Amino acid sequence: MLTQDVRNALDVADLNKLKYDLNSLQPVDVGEYISELPEQQRAIAFRLLNKNQAIDVFEYLPTEVQEELINSLHDVQVVHLVEEMSPDERAYLFDELPAGVVKRLLQQLSAEQRQATATILGYPEGTAGRVMTTEYVRLRQGLTVGEALSKIRLQDEDKETIYYAYVTDDNRKLVSVVSLRQLLFTFPEVFIRDIASSQVVKVTTETSQEEVARIMQRYDLIAIPVVDREDRLVGIITIDDVVDILEEEATEDIQKLAAVSGDEEALSPPHLTIRKRLPWLLGIMALYIGAASAIAPFQRVIAAVPVLAVIMPIFSNTGGTVGIQALTVTIRGLGVGEVTTKDAGKILRKELIAGLGTALALGSTMILLSLIWAKPDEKWVALIAGVVMATNTMVAVSLGTLLPMGLQRLKLDPALMSGPLVTTMLDTIGFLTFLSMISLALKVFNLSY
Amino acid sequence: MLTQDVRNALDVADLNKLKYDLNSLQPVDVGEYISELPEQQRAIAFRLLNKNQAIDVFEYLPTEVQEELINSLHDVQVVHLVEEMSPDERAYLFDELPAGVVKRLLQQLSAEQRQATATILGYPEGTAGRVMTTEYVRLRQGLTVGEALSKIRLQDEDKETIYYAYVTDDNRKLVSVVSLRQLLFTFPEVFIRDIASSQVVKVTTETSQEEVARIMQRYDLIAIPVVDREDRLVGIITIDDVVDILEEEATEDIQKLAAVSGDEEALSPPHLTIRKRLPWLLGIMALYIGAASAIAPFQRVIAAVPVLAVIMPIFSNTGGTVGIQALTVTIRGLGVGEVTTKDAGKILRKELIAGLGTALALGSTMILLSLIWAKPDEKWVALIAGVVMATNTMVAVSLGTLLPMGLQRLKLDPALMSGPLVTTMLDTIGFLTFLSMISLALKVFNLSY
Repeated sequence: MLTQDVRNALDVADLNKLKYDLNSLQPVDVGEYISELPEQQRAIAFRLLNKNQAIDVFEYLPTEVQEELINSLHDVQVVHLVEEMSPDERAYLFDELPAGVVKRLLQQLSAEQRQATATILGYPEGTAGRVMTTEYVRLRQGLTVGEALSKIRLQDEDKETIYYAYVTDDNRKLVSVVSLRQLLFTFPEVFIRDIASSQVVKVTTETSQEEVARIMQRYDLIAIPVVDREDRLVGIITIDDVVDILEEEATEDIQKLAAVSGDEEALSPPHLTIRKRLPWLLGIMALYIGAASAIAPFQRVIAAVPVLAVIMPIFSNTGGTVGIQALTVTIRGLGVGEVTTKDAGKILRKELIAGLGTALALGSTMILLSLIWAKPDEKWVALIAGVVMATNTMVAVSLGTLLPMGLQRLKLDPALMSGPLVTTMLDTIGFLTFLSMISLALKVFNLSY
Repeated sequence: MLTQDVRNALDVADLNKLKYDLNSLQPVDVGEYISELPEQQRAIAFRLLNKNQAIDVFEYLPTEVQEELINSLHDVQVVHLVEEMSPDERAYLFDELPAGVVKRLLQQLSAEQRQATATILGYPEGTAGRVMTTEYVRLRQGLTVGEALSKIRLQDEDKETIYYAYVTDDNRKLVSVVSLRQLLFTFPEVFIRDIASSQVVKVTTETSQEEVARIMQRYDLIAIPVVDREDRLVGIITIDDVVDILEEEATEDIQKLAAVSGDEEALSPPHLTIRKRLPWLLGIMALYIGAASAIAPFQRVIAAVPVLAVIMPIFSNTGGTVGIQALTVTIRGLGVGEVTTKDAGKILRKELIAGLGTALALGSTMILLSLIWAKPDEKWVALIAGVVMATNTMVAVSLGTLLPMGLQRLKLDPALMSGPLVTTMLDTIGFLTFLSMISLALKVFNLSY
């Protein structure tokens, strides 16, 4: 019997209970459950879902699992699932599937869905055109509120959001927007043009997804219309996508600061981990040849004043941290849109004022710490260490602010300036200053070394 | 004439144009414009807004500016503005206002709004109770779809979201949820209990705001109901708050990793900057006494083999970066809910495998680099440097993974383990291993120093 086979395959005692659960739980939870099953069991569990639940769950599965199911389910079922996906999710899946599979699936889709997918896939990754959905409610200008509501009721229940309806003219140009809330609170005989707002916050297909997210956040929108170059309405982007975009953004910023290229996850496979991190490490090591070369000529000085080897790591570590602090606050400020390159001067001023206080505190602490290890004839080193710690602090806040601002002005990603890159520069400058001053002092006071 | 005065005060040529703009632009944009005016002009500009726009704009102003306006506008106007704020925004404002002002305002609010604010202010900061709003649509079980829609139409237009309605029993206990979309797509005579879903995703007043955000993100909700301990519905949280919570969260994670306490902004005043950063710097410097003390006993070794002073910073910098990479990926994984402490073993395994590859690459590079500066009789140092670079890499990935996991298991914030803290530990371990091995080699091979 099939059910017995299924029960064995899934290793469950109560198949009815499992079937009931899979069909009544939230799609995202069921999706997670199925993804965590061993590969051979996934298609079996998926077949236990009824039609609507299957459609919903399918959208929540990771792309690999979707691909697997496409290969193991019947063709009719696959076409049905893919047909019912929202166009943006479908475009995302098609991006990952082998070209042959995509071609076969596209041929079997309805003309309308095929067109929607092709449109979205035509826009470059990371743009509004690529993340939008083509399922939205569009109204013509001449309707009344009552007619609009009837029209919305006739829409496919699948439309991603019916909470805003967009009003277009005869050329499909976006004219105004009206919320479902407004429609419900207005008498049916009123014309929508009298309540719709023509101050429409919109983006174009070319707007970057990060900017879309920022704009929706700013205006507290749950959906935003996307227009083409001729101002014709082509799609909408909904808030659930924005939440994910903002989170991806933040992860990228964090990881780049820590010298990890973009999207590594905690459970990414080791080879991916190496690929995302090792190039940074080797690059930083190569750059660090500069810092080491700054020390090399002073080997005799260090041999003569060995306490330097104790002190230098302290100010390298502390100065580096000062730089990373300023860098991080600046990059995050740019990232969340708190500041732009126009504010570079203002930020630098604030950093320098705060830096002055910090420099005094760190400089004095450095003097005290150095005195711990300095032998009686080395006590003078503490003073120089304190001064260099203080000047290095000022250099650190300046670099931490100006480097990401400079990258941003060059239209590069400010987060490319990772923390270790900044500490490497600071070490080079710091070691060079410190050792030159020590060496100078030795000469001036005519100390033998 | 008043308008001439206003014109002078605001220094604008066309007052009508300004007034038109202020009343037709998006409230958030007007709020920004007013906040950026000099202090004396803000109240003047604000008075140009008509009633509804004033209410909307007021919610978008920064708390300092709200406070200023409360002090400079007429009492009647202030009470009206505060009365019309959504309860969660009002609670947020009251938190910042002097107790005397809050008391005066509370007395003048309607009983209903006073109650709503008091309820929210009764919950601790950072909980669902504190960020929820008490304005939502509640339906009784026995209604039909038609009755429900009429009831929603009768609601105050202010309700934060009418896109979901929550169905409660006679004890106000949350029973089910129905979306406006469902109501619109169903015949008016159907009973809502037949279409409402009893699988309600909900949180309690004590749930942390981060968890609320994660749950709403997971289930793609635009609003989530908040219940008290007795499962009675007390409020809802809407998606626009969630977007802000997630962003705050990410900023905190990024800044803590960089040794900056929470919410510093790029344009925070310098004294705040010092307060958020200096304690970390001094703490890290104090901890670094450990690393420096590890080097101190070996001063004679360094004097004898001065190339050590050139090499040590390279492996300190590289080893630190390796640690920060693992740390960041782990903390972000915990932060976005990709992994939990249960996955510690899995992550460690992945990090160690990837670490092995990295260790080999970095160890060999270290050998090559060391050979650049080593004098003929110091070449053997390169081998030890390579070995220590490799072992230090393994230590770095382990610490980077296990420290935040440990904090999380102790129910502490894993992001407390900032990058510089980890590099300090790694330096201490690394210097000690490296110098001990060098010293041992000197003894074993009986080299004089």
